Amino acid sequence: MILELREKGLLAKEAAYHLGLADTTLKDKALIKMADDLEARCGEILVANALDMQAAKEKDFSKAFLDRLLLTENRVKDMSEGLRAITKLSDPVGEVESMWTTTHGLQIGKMRVPLGVIGIIYEARPNVTVDAAGLCLKSGNAVILRGSSDAINSNIKITEIISKSVETAGLPKGSIQLIEDTSREVANQMLKLNEYLDVLIPRGGAGLIKTVVENATVPVIETGVGNCHVYVECDADLDMAEKIIINAKTHRPGVCNAAETLLVHKDIAEKFLPIVGEKLRALGVEMRCCSVAQQLIPGSQGACEEDFAEEFLDLILAVKIVEDINEALVHIRKYGTKHSEAIVTNDYKKARLFQRAVDAAAVYVNASTRFTDGFQFGYGAEIGISTQKLHARGPMGLKELTSYKYVIFGDGQIRA
Amino acid sequence: MILELREKGLLAKEAAYHLGLADTTLKDKALIKMADDLEARCGEILVANALDMQAAKEKDFSKAFLDRLLLTENRVKDMSEGLRAITKLSDPVGEVESMWTTTHGLQIGKMRVPLGVIGIIYEARPNVTVDAAGLCLKSGNAVILRGSSDAINSNIKITEIISKSVETAGLPKGSIQLIEDTSREVANQMLKLNEYLDVLIPRGGAGLIKTVVENATVPVIETGVGNCHVYVECDADLDMAEKIIINAKTHRPGVCNAAETLLVHKDIAEKFLPIVGEKLRALGVEMRCCSVAQQLIPGSQGACEEDFAEEFLDLILAVKIVEDINEALVHIRKYGTKHSEAIVTNDYKKARLFQRAVDAAAVYVNASTRFTDGFQFGYGAEIGISTQKLHARGPMGLKELTSYKYVIFGDGQIRA
Repeated sequence: MILELREKGLLAKEAAYHLGLADTTLKDKALIKMADDLEARCGEILVANALDMQAAKEKDFSKAFLDRLLLTENRVKDMSEGLRAITKLSDPVGEVESMWTTTHGLQIGKMRVPLGVIGIIYEARPNVTVDAAGLCLKSGNAVILRGSSDAINSNIKITEIISKSVETAGLPKGSIQLIEDTSREVANQMLKLNEYLDVLIPRGGAGLIKTVVENATVPVIETGVGNCHVYVECDADLDMAEKIIINAKTHRPGVCNAAETLLVHKDIAEKFLPIVGEKLRALGVEMRCCSVAQQLIPGSQGACEEDFAEEFLDLILAVKIVEDINEALVHIRKYGTKHSEAIVTNDYKKARLFQRAVDAAAVYVNASTRFTDGFQFGYGAEIGISTQKLHARGPMGLKELTSYKYVIFGDGQIRA
Repeated sequence: MILELREKGLLAKEAAYHLGLADTTLKDKALIKMADDLEARCGEILVANALDMQAAKEKDFSKAFLDRLLLTENRVKDMSEGLRAITKLSDPVGEVESMWTTTHGLQIGKMRVPLGVIGIIYEARPNVTVDAAGLCLKSGNAVILRGSSDAINSNIKITEIISKSVETAGLPKGSIQLIEDTSREVANQMLKLNEYLDVLIPRGGAGLIKTVVENATVPVIETGVGNCHVYVECDADLDMAEKIIINAKTHRPGVCNAAETLLVHKDIAEKFLPIVGEKLRALGVEMRCCSVAQQLIPGSQGACEEDFAEEFLDLILAVKIVEDINEALVHIRKYGTKHSEAIVTNDYKKARLFQRAVDAAAVYVNASTRFTDGFQFGYGAEIGISTQKLHARGPMGLKELTSYKYVIFGDGQIRA
């Protein structure tokens, strides 16, 4: 095993033990110190980030890529504010969700405990370094971060600052660590670091997530890829349907809870599509349509099979006319990524059928898919949106970064 | 991919969709039918089992192995009764654990749903075929079973019978399937069957579990290995401590919640160990002790490092004298398998420290580790005892075989 992984793994495991026992006041103190230190040493961060930006520009990365990589004084302030906001969230560790007494008089409680050591693998977004570290710390977990080589200077500087803050506040040295060797070999070994990691959370695009899921032996929580649908039933309030699809598609097209496909019942397609198509077009949305829909929306293009499978993350929308709700359900089963799905309908039975039959983290009736978000759900900041079914589903906040243990109080009970 | 896996995977996925929507009455009807059919066709099962027994005897397997493999009329009846008992458990699917209304007026509910398709990899115990199939069915999951080649005739016959019962009851054909090709190649491919399996649960000894954890890319729930400790503090009620360690060690030594190591505070060792040592010896327990303890227990042996790491699953107990609770905690951290750990004490602070600091599925004060069990906890039959922290910990009953989804009721809400 590569030395850096072994050393940091050992340190993280030791840190996790003490972090798991740390009280909320101490953890919050560390979060505030992290926030203050990031602001105080903002200049150093911007210098490190400038190196990454310079290298990225030379590599001819896209504008969107450069924008995600860029740090400014305001963005550093936002990261700090994010940490301060985490101190306002309630600490799940130690919470006993239920407690009961068995027939033998044993009192059994189910108590929340941290997961242990969390590995985060992510792309060139230095803000993830801070967000993830803050959420892991508050939930009592040690974190091992592995960011992109394109953000390595920013990440090293940020981690240097916040891991120092945590130590100063009185928490263990190994609470927050960054893998500095960004080689593929190290990444591959990290995927199999079962000895030290309790869970791995990849944050990034579909390619990164696929690589992690297919190669990791450490338990993974799959996040983020959202090929979300809005299905408009024949009895839908068409004004409502129009507002919902426009919001779901255009409010923030680059995020995972944005809609990528509009499914429309055949009976209302002729009435609905020309109007909504015109409005979407005016908002800059490119539409890729099945043949009938294409005829109903002037200026739209034809869709190929792949268009229905793709998470565009852009002002592009696939459009398809379906026979009925059953065809819509089959389509969603085939192309959906179990993220967020919505139906617009006024039919009680169809609403119920859609909610039962669709297998996704969030299933909406008459609302925009854009609400699948930790803050909107009332959970606060999230580490990602899980699209798998094991452990946690949907927005993952502090509670989803914990496990539980049974604490059992007896008076000498033995089993008969 | 091997054809059998692909075909059964596809069938299971299709079955899971319909099983997820099946109501409790229908699932219970199928369970009763399975139970009846197993009893009615008991003769066929015993004939198939005789083939496995014959082959196993020729291979010179241990008595314990042969006993686990053996089916009798009574054991088939027990399996059927187990299925009938599952119909009495409440169905977690569709349960909404909490529901709230957001500031935008969205009503959000967290609803239990099946995991989907569950893979079970297990050793030569044909009763697991029936237990696992029953629990998966009731929780709305399709199951793909992969048993040992040593039980293949029994497993094929049992699966033939119960999958037929399920179909007759009106549930899908692919609800319960067995991988008949028991080659290593197929097992290896099953570990990476992410396309069709939502989770893999290995049931068996430490070797099997290790292989699955280290090689699977499908999410795994680690079960079963229990190197459990009983720690006796200096202020413990020694009669209580004696009863607890005797129960934890000898009540059923071959199971995962049996104690494997006794840790004793140095101040009471001289008083406690000779008495408890004598009683354990009389019950046939072989003791492997640290050097001081060895002197206190006549007829005991010296322990080597490995003795403290081993899950004996037998009438063998490692014994160690420790300086204080801190040394006990360090020992448990080093050798424990996060299953069940107990302290015997009358000291409030030490009880609290032990419960907070020990990282295990079940942490006991003044009770035997033998209570870590689905029935004892009040959950009913279990698919295994999870020793990992992700998803589920401790006894895994029906609820632990489910995930959740958010069902969201709106009135046209869009995100501002």
